[in-house]
Amino acid sequence: MASSLVLYGYWRSSAAYRVRIALALKGLPWENRPVHLVKDGGQQHAADYASMNPQQLVPSLRDGDRVLTQSLAIMEYLEETRPRPPLLPADAGGRARVRVLAQAVACDIHPLGNLRVLQYLERELGVGEAQRGAWVRHWIAAGFAAMEAMLAGDAATGRYCHGDTPGLADACLVPQVYNAHRWKVALDDYPTIARIAAACGELDAFRAAAPEAQPDAA
Amino acid sequence: MASSLVLYGYWRSSAAYRVRIALALKGLPWENRPVHLVKDGGQQHAADYASMNPQQLVPSLRDGDRVLTQSLAIMEYLEETRPRPPLLPADAGGRARVRVLAQAVACDIHPLGNLRVLQYLERELGVGEAQRGAWVRHWIAAGFAAMEAMLAGDAATGRYCHGDTPGLADACLVPQVYNAHRWKVALDDYPTIARIAAACGELDAFRAAAPEAQPDAA
Repeated sequence: MASSLVLYGYWRSSAAYRVRIALALKGLPWENRPVHLVKDGGQQHAADYASMNPQQLVPSLRDGDRVLTQSLAIMEYLEETRPRPPLLPADAGGRARVRVLAQAVACDIHPLGNLRVLQYLERELGVGEAQRGAWVRHWIAAGFAAMEAMLAGDAATGRYCHGDTPGLADACLVPQVYNAHRWKVALDDYPTIARIAAACGELDAFRAAAPEAQPDAA
Repeated sequence: MASSLVLYGYWRSSAAYRVRIALALKGLPWENRPVHLVKDGGQQHAADYASMNPQQLVPSLRDGDRVLTQSLAIMEYLEETRPRPPLLPADAGGRARVRVLAQAVACDIHPLGNLRVLQYLERELGVGEAQRGAWVRHWIAAGFAAMEAMLAGDAATGRYCHGDTPGLADACLVPQVYNAHRWKVALDDYPTIARIAAACGELDAFRAAAPEAQPDAA
């Protein structure tokens, strides 16, 4: 019997959104502990939270006595401890492909549009709102152009990023598409990404994980 | 019999350096195909390379007919296809811990000090050299402070990041320490990081993977 899961997240955090999708795809119940990223100077910086997550970022996942951080590490952990249904394919090549797509989001798009990065651009470098928007859009566009090429040019792409079963790559892509909408990045140049995101949007797991469906949504 | 491995990298690329360490720790022979990130406007943008790696980033690894990208995905792939010696511990909790440390570098420090990001700061936002340096140092310091807390405060830390066997977290940490030296970030506040990096530096695998040991080093 697996122990109960507690997610420390924020409704609009892209990384927390990924983990919510993974939990929902696996049908795992979890308790929600919202951490407000702006209120109180950012609740992620409070001593209690920082002792659990020294990076002072969301999400964190508590599994019994164990605390996990980093959304990709959390999803791999869920995959290893609660393997059914799987978020990764069985073959090493397929697993690598799914991880590449996930990391194209998590390592090369999302870190550049993070709250703390935008705050640094504004406060330390005096970058104005229009230029901050252009910055975020630039990195989304660069990442999506590459991902579109990887998805459109590969027969392994199916209804979802990898075949006809939603998984770890979709759990990263969909929150990034949500961010793209927030930043008014049109998806016209990324038809495969748009199609996959729409297909995911029809699934209950993705709907339940959506930012606006969270109790802490503004 | 595993097929031969070809690494497309750049001597000073932190992500390529990670993969070189992983290959060396596993004792795998590989063929070197340098991709110069500045010469010719950046050889990673050449059509041949971009068709293999649509993100136009290094590294890429060719394994027979298969091409892999993203350093973390490549290391997980090597772990799955060439499991001995392992780069990850056997237990799910330990594996998550190692991945957290690896991703603290690969998702939250390195992407912000990347060549393309520094080029954008300079060319699009007119950020001067001193402020670009301060930017890189800020993200290294934030990341290292968190990693120092995670390493120093956990009995699972040994001679290396996780116990007394070098692995995936060390393969990410050491190239980031190399970058910290380049950017003149003192390690005084991160004694555990400094100790682990020094311990890794005594191993042949890490020496062989070092930037200055590569044939394309300037």
